[in-house]
Amino acid sequence: MDQKQLIAERIRNVDLRSRVTTPEEAALLVKDGYTVGMSGFTGVGYPKAFPLALAARAEAGDRVGITLITGASVGDELDGALSRAGVIKRRYPYQSNADLRNRINAGEIKYVDLHLSQVALWIRQGILGKIDLAVVEASSIDEAGNIIPTASVGVADAVVACADKVVVEISSAIPKEIEGLHDVYSSEPAPNTKPIPITSPGDRIGTTYIPCDPDKIAAIIFSDRIDGNAELKPADETMQQIAEHLIAFLESEVEAGRLTDPLPPLQSGVGGVANAVLSCLAKSDFTDLTVYTEVMQDAVLDLIEAGKVKVASATSLTISPSRKKAVFDRIGDFKDKIVLRPQEISNSPEVIRRLSLIAMNTAIEADLSGNVNSTHIGGVRMMNGIGGSGDFARNAGLTIFTTASTAKGGKLSCIVPVVSHVDHTEHDVDVIITEQGVADLRGLTAFERAELIIDNCAHPDFRGELRASLERAKSRVPMGHGLIAE
Amino acid sequence: MDQKQLIAERIRNVDLRSRVTTPEEAALLVKDGYTVGMSGFTGVGYPKAFPLALAARAEAGDRVGITLITGASVGDELDGALSRAGVIKRRYPYQSNADLRNRINAGEIKYVDLHLSQVALWIRQGILGKIDLAVVEASSIDEAGNIIPTASVGVADAVVACADKVVVEISSAIPKEIEGLHDVYSSEPAPNTKPIPITSPGDRIGTTYIPCDPDKIAAIIFSDRIDGNAELKPADETMQQIAEHLIAFLESEVEAGRLTDPLPPLQSGVGGVANAVLSCLAKSDFTDLTVYTEVMQDAVLDLIEAGKVKVASATSLTISPSRKKAVFDRIGDFKDKIVLRPQEISNSPEVIRRLSLIAMNTAIEADLSGNVNSTHIGGVRMMNGIGGSGDFARNAGLTIFTTASTAKGGKLSCIVPVVSHVDHTEHDVDVIITEQGVADLRGLTAFERAELIIDNCAHPDFRGELRASLERAKSRVPMGHGLIAE
Repeated sequence: MDQKQLIAERIRNVDLRSRVTTPEEAALLVKDGYTVGMSGFTGVGYPKAFPLALAARAEAGDRVGITLITGASVGDELDGALSRAGVIKRRYPYQSNADLRNRINAGEIKYVDLHLSQVALWIRQGILGKIDLAVVEASSIDEAGNIIPTASVGVADAVVACADKVVVEISSAIPKEIEGLHDVYSSEPAPNTKPIPITSPGDRIGTTYIPCDPDKIAAIIFSDRIDGNAELKPADETMQQIAEHLIAFLESEVEAGRLTDPLPPLQSGVGGVANAVLSCLAKSDFTDLTVYTEVMQDAVLDLIEAGKVKVASATSLTISPSRKKAVFDRIGDFKDKIVLRPQEISNSPEVIRRLSLIAMNTAIEADLSGNVNSTHIGGVRMMNGIGGSGDFARNAGLTIFTTASTAKGGKLSCIVPVVSHVDHTEHDVDVIITEQGVADLRGLTAFERAELIIDNCAHPDFRGELRASLERAKSRVPMGHGLIAE
Repeated sequence: MDQKQLIAERIRNVDLRSRVTTPEEAALLVKDGYTVGMSGFTGVGYPKAFPLALAARAEAGDRVGITLITGASVGDELDGALSRAGVIKRRYPYQSNADLRNRINAGEIKYVDLHLSQVALWIRQGILGKIDLAVVEASSIDEAGNIIPTASVGVADAVVACADKVVVEISSAIPKEIEGLHDVYSSEPAPNTKPIPITSPGDRIGTTYIPCDPDKIAAIIFSDRIDGNAELKPADETMQQIAEHLIAFLESEVEAGRLTDPLPPLQSGVGGVANAVLSCLAKSDFTDLTVYTEVMQDAVLDLIEAGKVKVASATSLTISPSRKKAVFDRIGDFKDKIVLRPQEISNSPEVIRRLSLIAMNTAIEADLSGNVNSTHIGGVRMMNGIGGSGDFARNAGLTIFTTASTAKGGKLSCIVPVVSHVDHTEHDVDVIITEQGVADLRGLTAFERAELIIDNCAHPDFRGELRASLERAKSRVPMGHGLIAE
């Protein structure tokens, strides 16, 4: 398809067609000191040509430093290129790019990780400052000038609503047939707020587009770059064992009458364990599953195709590169099975508590009291950020954290006396699962929790040490609250 | 009024009148090993004659140990008497009684503090085991056998719904005219849950009574004991300064357009600072205030009477003893101004986020990263428990923690490099306020937060030490995430 055909197909508002320009021209809209809000969540749906042009501009000697706000992590064309070019000065609310991470940990870029449900609210309230420019990836622009997103929504709707100027980067790599997959909804601000009317993960409550006043669209550019998210590695034996323990635990909870069958909607974090758990569910006896999560990975699609999952809701559809073409070639078929929402809704405490989700997220390390570190290696080196785990862990009906019992080839225990950074307190962690087994911590005192975690979750090589640590704590603090410290 | 008149007045269901018995007889319903769920929240609305009789039974040599679940803290007739008599073996979800606390900290009683919004859900799901007996304080029983609560609701509705047997302790110290103040509502369990239809703190969505099948009522007893909550101390100079800083901060947020005027509904914790803040609001220019909180203390009534607060919602009406009579003598007058709800609703993450509450709670200590310790003195000695602070802090629109900058007559800094126990992580703490000033931490990196907390909140006597600690951290960890530790 030539450029003219593409414009005709993807920009249905005729007046807006004249605003098509080059990424280089569009990148000139950014002024030094701007706060720029962009689309993108977990490596998909972020602008690509725009940040590459902006990075080139900076590398050519233009002084341009920005505060960058996205939904969550984005690809290397954005976080990588702009951090290498020295453009990103301050970054919210999440990242997972190696070059950006290194600069954050070197103190060169100011980074603050935020609960993801909160980001759009803070943008709208002005807590993160005025949004000078919004840059969003789109599949199309409709007749009225509204923006049809691509593989994620994130905070795109909030930045478009709050910015005076909007750059739309239309991705020809995403078929226009994705239109209809999204459900964009935002609560009226207080005091006029109404309940978010979702009572089931598949409920559609909003529009299939991001509302946008066409006068705000300052530039439209095109890109054919594919989202840069990584291939999911196949589950290793440890992941497989964690997944099997988790499913056996859910089965036993149904048996005991503490969980319903069909299960409440599932939320699962990003990565291999999350994918392994869902893959494993395909082989279980559970049926009529639903998913209400941040990020849909490959396994959710498999479960949908296998008829195990009826419907799935997320803010991001992060499919492995090897499967992308097959999925997007028939993306229209998924419209009654998949809903992509703003992260304000996918991670809404209101909906999470109402639906009594089963929240499954990964820990870097967990301690004997039940506290979880999700963000900091050794307590000081930022890994990615808290992401949505706090929205789900605090408000879900059942909160599970998983981790391998050891790291670094078995040299380090991921079960420690005291975590080096607390992201999820003992009050938020219901169940810990490693490849060793399951510790259901609900209703247990600190010492009871510690015993169970050592017995069921710690690697046998480290149980002796951990038990000695617990015994020392007991000799000092009879009741066992607080830190079970050395 | 003699007993016969009292029975006629307070037990409107004629058939149930025959179930009136003595506390001693009723206490025999408890068997060793029972899990007993009781009413009571922040020192009001808990059974009194029943636990005193149960304690006497144990002291006379009967072996009877129980797991005790209430809404939150209760008076000495319950937590004190039953812990001294050795009856309480395990305790959920909150307490503030000295004798109970000492036994918890001595390792004699197993105690687990829980997020208060979660307790009723866990009771209904059976996470805390079967409720063998419910004991609830009531003002009356209606024609159908339903129970009219007294000064709190807490988890009374949940324990009545889940227990096979119910003991009702009718308090003649609470006038029957309290009927109509309560609004008892519980969501249908998933998958049939609907939105909680509260869009304004005064909305009434349920019944004025706790629904109860009269066949479950195993005994009815009477008591004229007054709730044992303590007198609120008058605000000292430190509290007054904290309150003034807080109100000046709210004014500046309105000025900056980040808060609306009228303000969003207010939540405030329990105690002197909370009361001082509300008292101070009476003198401010704010009008048309609303309150959506756990516990209404004296100042809320003053604000209602002064016309500053239009309506207040809570799960507990905890009025100082010296004011109780005046308030309860005309409790009927407050029915359009006060709503008492189950704590599942007063602390609902759904409603908290929807109403974008201003959450104001107290810290034992706060650290330079912005983490807050609300529960453990020195990291190991349990004070009271996390209570509802986690429900509000994570989900509110604006989360403020207050503390005096020093404790122990100025000898200890309440601003520390690293808190000894994390209850609220850096991600949940928006603003810290001491008598020294205000640190608005939103959007700031760990090092930026630390600088601001030292400059604005720490006592001048400790700023040098804290700054040295921060400098050492900076020399080790350029980006300043994680623990700013020694």
